[in-house]
Formats: sequence, C-alpha cells, structure tokens
Amino acid sequence: MAIGTLHIDPKSAEPVYRQIALEIRRSVLDGRFEAGSRLPATRDLARQLGVNRNTVVAAYDALASEGWVASHTGRGTFVIDRSVIEVAEPVDSSHEETLRTGFSRAVECAAIGGLRSIYRLAISDEGISFVGSYPAGDRMPVEQFGASLQAVLKKDGPAILGYGPTAGSFDLRETIAATMREAGSDVSPERTLVTSGAQQAIELVFRTFVERGDVVLIEEPTYTGALSVLNSLGARIVGIPVDDEGIRPEPLDVALERHRPKLLYVQPTFHNPTAAEMGLARRREVVEICRRHRCLIVEDDWAGDLRLDGERLPTLHAIAAGSNVIYLSTFSKKLMPGLRVGWVVAPAAAFERLVELKRLQDCGTSPLIQAALDHFLRAGGLDEHLKKTLPVYRDRRDTMFDALSRHFPKEAVFKRPTGGLFIWVTLPTSFDGNTLFAAARRREVLYSRGDLFHGDGSGNNSLRLTYSAADPTEIENGVSVLGELVRERWPDGPREDSPGTAESMPIF
Amino acid sequence: MAIGTLHIDPKSAEPVYRQIALEIRRSVLDGRFEAGSRLPATRDLARQLGVNRNTVVAAYDALASEGWVASHTGRGTFVIDRSVIEVAEPVDSSHEETLRTGFSRAVECAAIGGLRSIYRLAISDEGISFVGSYPAGDRMPVEQFGASLQAVLKKDGPAILGYGPTAGSFDLRETIAATMREAGSDVSPERTLVTSGAQQAIELVFRTFVERGDVVLIEEPTYTGALSVLNSLGARIVGIPVDDEGIRPEPLDVALERHRPKLLYVQPTFHNPTAAEMGLARRREVVEICRRHRCLIVEDDWAGDLRLDGERLPTLHAIAAGSNVIYLSTFSKKLMPGLRVGWVVAPAAAFERLVELKRLQDCGTSPLIQAALDHFLRAGGLDEHLKKTLPVYRDRRDTMFDALSRHFPKEAVFKRPTGGLFIWVTLPTSFDGNTLFAAARRREVLYSRGDLFHGDGSGNNSLRLTYSAADPTEIENGVSVLGELVRERWPDGPREDSPGTAESMPIF
Repeated sequence: MAIGTLHIDPKSAEPVYRQIALEIRRSVLDGRFEAGSRLPATRDLARQLGVNRNTVVAAYDALASEGWVASHTGRGTFVIDRSVIEVAEPVDSSHEETLRTGFSRAVECAAIGGLRSIYRLAISDEGISFVGSYPAGDRMPVEQFGASLQAVLKKDGPAILGYGPTAGSFDLRETIAATMREAGSDVSPERTLVTSGAQQAIELVFRTFVERGDVVLIEEPTYTGALSVLNSLGARIVGIPVDDEGIRPEPLDVALERHRPKLLYVQPTFHNPTAAEMGLARRREVVEICRRHRCLIVEDDWAGDLRLDGERLPTLHAIAAGSNVIYLSTFSKKLMPGLRVGWVVAPAAAFERLVELKRLQDCGTSPLIQAALDHFLRAGGLDEHLKKTLPVYRDRRDTMFDALSRHFPKEAVFKRPTGGLFIWVTLPTSFDGNTLFAAARRREVLYSRGDLFHGDGSGNNSLRLTYSAADPTEIENGVSVLGELVRERWPDGPREDSPGTAESMPIF
Repeated sequence: MAIGTLHIDPKSAEPVYRQIALEIRRSVLDGRFEAGSRLPATRDLARQLGVNRNTVVAAYDALASEGWVASHTGRGTFVIDRSVIEVAEPVDSSHEETLRTGFSRAVECAAIGGLRSIYRLAISDEGISFVGSYPAGDRMPVEQFGASLQAVLKKDGPAILGYGPTAGSFDLRETIAATMREAGSDVSPERTLVTSGAQQAIELVFRTFVERGDVVLIEEPTYTGALSVLNSLGARIVGIPVDDEGIRPEPLDVALERHRPKLLYVQPTFHNPTAAEMGLARRREVVEICRRHRCLIVEDDWAGDLRLDGERLPTLHAIAAGSNVIYLSTFSKKLMPGLRVGWVVAPAAAFERLVELKRLQDCGTSPLIQAALDHFLRAGGLDEHLKKTLPVYRDRRDTMFDALSRHFPKEAVFKRPTGGLFIWVTLPTSFDGNTLFAAARRREVLYSRGDLFHGDGSGNNSLRLTYSAADPTEIENGVSVLGELVRERWPDGPREDSPGTAESMPIF
C-alpha cells in the first residue's frame, strides 16, 4: 500500500487516530491493502504523517478491536483475511431487516468468524473432504448406544427427561474422574464439570478468566475455536512458537515475564492443527516455567485417547498435580460428536464459577444423553470402540502419509503423526495457499487452510488434512489431486525461503 | 446503619470512593448493614462525609459492579441478600486450591447467583416442593420419545451422531417455523435457531446486544435466569412495574424516553413469576410504544402452549410482523426439560450473530436429540401430550387456588392464573418473608421466594408456588402448612401497608 494515500485532516471533528483507522479500513475494503499484508511500523507511519506515535497505536488498537487487523508479537500488525470468513457464508440480504439496536463488541468482532468458515466447509457434501477433525462416521457404535439409551429410559425415564444438576450427572462425573485417576491425575467428581463438548469447556474457562484487553498465551498456530472465543472476549492474543516437541520453553519464559498473561492455552497431545506431541521432558519444563511465573495453564486434551503409536504420556494436569492447571477434554473425537459431551476439571474456586456460567448458558447438558453415555462407558463401550477404530485411523494415517510422500514435492514438510486425526503439511512461505485452496475446491477436494489456525492472516501456506473421516481411496485420490495442484503452482521447486530456513515459520 | 461509623482517611493512598465502598462492604459483612436495607441517598452521604457527590456515586457503582448492592430506579440503592446465594450452596473449602489468576467480571458479580439458589432448591428431594417451574414428571411421554430415538437412530444413525449445522437441524427448524406460522407469525426456518433451552436463547440474545453499562428494561419482577445473565454482562437493569394486564404502558414510555435502552425483555404470556397474561390491547400498545422509540423487544414465550383457560392471543412477534421483535421459546415446559431444546427467531442481521455465538459456545445442540424431537413432533406427539397434561395442570391449579383460598389470610393477594405452571402470592410488604421461608423449610415445604425475581433484595413478601409438578395431596398439605405458618407470623392481621395500597408494590 502506498502510505501517501492516507488522507488525514487535522481540522476535522473526527479524532486523528479514528481518521487513520478509517483510512486503513477503506484501503482494506477496496483492495489496496491486501489480507495478510503487514501494516507499517507505528513509528514509521507516525513520522510519515507527522503525528504522535501513540495516535497511530490507538488507530491500530481500534482496528484490532474491530477485527480488521491482528497484532503478532515480534512480527508486526497484519490485515486479517476477512474474505475467508465472509465468502464462506454469505448473508441472504433479501431477508435483511433493519435492527436499530447496536450489537455488542462480542459479536461485532469480525475475527470470531474463523470457526464458521472451517465449520461450513467441514459439513459440506462436496467431493473429498479432509476438513473437519472428525472421527470416522462409518464406525460409530450406533446400535450399542441405542441400546444404552433404551436401558436408561426404561430405568430412569422421567428423571433423565427432567432437569439435572448443572454440573452434570454425578454418575458420569464419577466415571470420568475414575478414568482420569487411572491415568495419574488427582481428580474427584466434585471438581468435574460436564459441558456441551470441548468448545463449551473452552468458552466457559476463557470467559471465567479473561477480561477485554487481558493477554492470553497460545501455541502458534492453535485451534480455531479457541482463537474465536478469545477474539470475542477482546483478549490480546500472544502466540508462542512451537517445534517438534510442542511449545518452545525460551519464548514461553520471555512472554510470561513480559506480558504477565491471564493464562496459557495449550494442547500437549496431538496438537490441533500440527498433530505435534509434547515430549515428557518438555511437559515438565512447561509446567515448571508456568509455576515459576504463577501462570494458569489450560490444557486441552481433546485427542489424548487417539494414540496410534508409542506410550501414553502424563498430562500436564497429572504432572502439576492439578495445581494451576485446568484440564478439558471431550467425547466428540474418541466417540461421537453428536453427543455434545465434554468436560472440565478445575480447582475449587474456578470450578464454582464455571458452574455458574454453565447455568447461565444452558442450565446443564441433556441428562438423557449423559445417562446413556455413562451406561455406555460403564459397559466398556469406549474401550471396545477404540479397539476397533484406532487400527482404522492408523491405516488411514499411513495411507495419507504415503500418498503425501509420493504426490507432494520433497520440499513440503510433514511428519507421520503419532496420534490424532490429521496431518499438517507446510509449504514454503512464498507459496500462495489462497490460489491452491481455490483450485482444490474447484476439483472438489477440501482441506483446512493453515491461516485459520493463526488469526492474523498468516499461515495460508500450510494445510491441515484430516485422514480419520475419509476412506483409503478418497485419501489417495484427494492427496493426488492436491499434489498435482501444488506442483503446477510450483514448477521451479523451492526458493530461498524454504520452511527449513525461514525465520518467521512458526511450525516444526 | 450509623453513617457516622464510616471511616474515611483523606490522606490515605486508597482513593476516597474506594474507601467508602470498602467501609460499606465491611458493614454488610459484619451485619451492621442488613440485606435489603437501603443505602443513604448519595447527596446525603456526600454532605455528611464532606466529599463530592460523584465520589459517593463512584463508590456505589463499584459496590454494584461487585454485586454487593443493586440500584433501583426511583427507589434507591439496596444491599443485596448474599446469604440467599451463599447459604444455598456452600463451597467445600477442604478442596480449596489457590489460583493466582484473577477472575473476569462476568463471574465475579455475586448477583449472578440467584439462579443457583433457586436451582438448588428446585432439585432438592426434601418434602413437598413448589419450587421449580417444572412440568409434571409423572406424565412424561417416555416410551413415545424412546421410540422416536430408535426410529431416527435406525434411519440416520451415523449422521445424527456426528456434527450437525450450528443453527440446528433444518427439519426441526422447519417444524418449529411451521407451528409458529399457524399461530400467525411470519417465520422461516432460515431465521430459526435451535438452542439448548430458553436459557441459552436468553443468554445468546442478551450477549449479542448488551455491553457493560447498557440499559435493559425488564418487567419487575421477572425471570431469575434473565436477571442473572444481565448481571453477568454488567447491564444496568431498569424495572418497569406491571399490573394485571402485564407491563404498564406509561412507565414503559417514560423509561424508553429517559434511558434509551438496548432492549426490553418481556414475557407477555403467563409471565414468570406472576403468571399474568398481557391482554390483546396491551400487547398492541407495548409493540406500538417500542416501535415509536425504536426499541428492540425480546419476547420470551416459554409458556405460550400452557394455556388452561380462554383463547390464545397473538404473540408480540406476530403483532409486530417480526420487525424489531426477537422471539424465543422452549420445549422444556410444554414437553421435557431433559431435552435441552429451545429456539430463537430473529431478523437476519441478529440471526447471523446469534449463530456465531452459539458456535463459540457449543458448536450446536445434539443432532441426535433434535432428530428424535422432530420425529416426535411430526408424529403429533406434542399435541397428544398437551391433551393429556393440560387437564392435569388445570386440576392442580384449581386444587392449589382452592387451598390458598382456604388456608391463607384474606389479605394475601393471588389470582387464578389462566395458564402456566404456578401461582404468585403476595403478602403485605411488612411481612417478613425470610423467616417464613426458613420456617417452611424446617417443615419441609419449599417454594421460590419472591426476592429471587427482583435482584435488589426486595420482594421477599411474595411466594411463587408451582402446582404443575406436585400431586393434589401434596398441594393441599403443603399449602396448609404455609397458611398455618403465615397466620402464626401474622396474628393481628394486615397493617397499613397492605398490597392494595402500598406505592412501592410493583405487582398487580
């Protein structure tokens, strides 16, 4: 963008910072300033416009709070890709009716739309989909769960069709707590809250702690649904780079010291989207660093049971003996998303508040579903289900890994994940992921674009490819199409900035 | 309280307003300043302490945002009854662990606990309960619903056990919209969002519009769950008095003019807690007044189908032809709370934002439950169920009304409601509802205390008595105990301030 085009009128009634923000917004809207591009450094723009640097900072803050740009520690401020959001689900303007009441900032933040974008694609029926982190639909224990439903209706019909305790059915909480105790965590049902999936668990936890303007540390990249909630709450999101072993200790330590964040949100096991697994030493180190800085850890263990290779590692919750770790997980991936059942384990003071918020949000998750799930779990249904599905996932993972090895250029970076549901593929930063995505869509192959896991418009050179929900033929065909499209767009091989060397590449 | 005991040190580093707030808080904690009592007028306290009036206003605001006091237009600022909240659900301090991270204002507001209080009592097993606004547990269509579950599992197993659209199953939305169209509303499935009960509908709608400090108009008294959400959002709640016909037009007009509120939350049909029904002329008037002031109406029609006498009246949504009315309802009361299914109908711009928030909160309500409910509805299950249950409710209502007429002193004010699930009884304002409640609890008769529906500590001289979930013998026995306890505490009959004459009585 030519900065010279910013028109500032010092005599206008509009404050100067607002004028700057509006001018930048206009530039984004008419395409002069593209998604993903970096705004000038505040110091430079201030000098150029002859205004105080704080004025420019205020303008950038205003744009950030309205969801037009996102700041990124050490890298600058970037224009958010709103087209991803808005193209994906057009508002039907023929039905538009006027509301004269303004919306809250929670919903006016455009950056909460990332989840919508991925979700819309995920439930699409077109062609071959590697989009959602979905379990295998063709392997669901439909009959067994149906039998559990009938059994509990017969036994407790009226009670489980009435209201239940907001924190969840005590039986189910006991079953969950017992399983976690077996895995080394000190958990009681009294500190276990049943939620409507991990998404509600994340939302409740963030809302219990995060106030507008609070800093929250995340792994960069991270789960879109967590980014969206943080954006809706007006959090200042600070990304910590990860490597093969997960979040990197040194930048974590520095960020804790510099930002004194409200909390760190982390997925140590089969991280979404990179599938990376934090090693045992790294887990201990992260817990220790956070303890030293007295920082709360929110551990999202959505994929813990989806291990395909190697031995189970202790959770951060187990390592920290519960202190200063809030743990959350879900039955959506290891069993069935349609249950909408997840859970949170939290220390007493936080637990009480989480229950309050849960009560305000929905008065509790369906007691019928909870009772049936508990019946299913106590009958050993989950273990049986995992015994059947994990080998299927292992096969599909291998099929995808092999297909990637054959069809993608050797400069594409990816690993054979040790668990979870997807593979993360990173191309050189110079690679234009937007055109690849559009071309793949025309060929009816869908995947999750990397920028959805960043929230600052960067990362579109990565692809998250889910193997769990596609059959081997689809995997082979889909990856073959993608490989072909990548090679077409990249006939000359990698340039200087290949993933192995680029400073700004946050992954692996 | 002796104001002279407020100790203010002008030389302290603590700001003066903060010192005042802390002193008042201390007085509340050590019992000098009782729950329900009114703080001195800001002008008076400022004069007495020799400080600026704004300093006292700031102190009161701080106390209000921390949930210690509540302001009440035209009546002053009152100390909130925290004991109701805290006695009801003691925190188990033996499990207390330290969290060094501060909580958000959303959960630190003590006034969000009202819902907890009523909820705890409602699910209690002790003696005779008139607490929750619950449907009859002994009349639930357990078998029919179980058959619907089996039918949809057989037909669509894997699909309804996976993720579904966030806005809800299209089939169910179509069924809901069709029913509303029959009742005169212009509704399409595209504007119908399935929620986890009316509670989530309320939470989503308020959160979509209300920012900290925004004014929201409510009927006074109103649903505890709505008050709790508004408190968690930091809304300024302004109560509009109601009479036999619902919300009063003149004070509504004045409040709209004076406060320019974000929205009006209203239950025109079998209002919770008074059971009052807004007449047709009043409905039209309210819609017209709000239209003139361009104020958004949120119509909570949780009880619309629970009519026991008379003819169905059009909803505000139907009268306003959808414009500037957001409509919400639930299957919890007319069918089964354990489903956790409600819905919202909203204009396009708001609808999109409601779906965003729903996605952030839980990625959608269980597709399995939605599919089974839709199957049940299409098979005519709801009509059949209402045909069976409404006569039962009519009987129970009459039993309770007759028992009240026989056992309560003639000065108690109550009406035979034309629908819904409860009767609202008001005693003179001089009557001490706290001691009645405690005595009734000792006799194992539970009810909902009126102050839970006010949020400023007032109203404990009213009782909400649910008839729907108790059998005739329980109703007779419970009301007889309550009548006996009322007469014991009131041997000399009514005083001057009987409900018929008291200025400050907001009900009927």
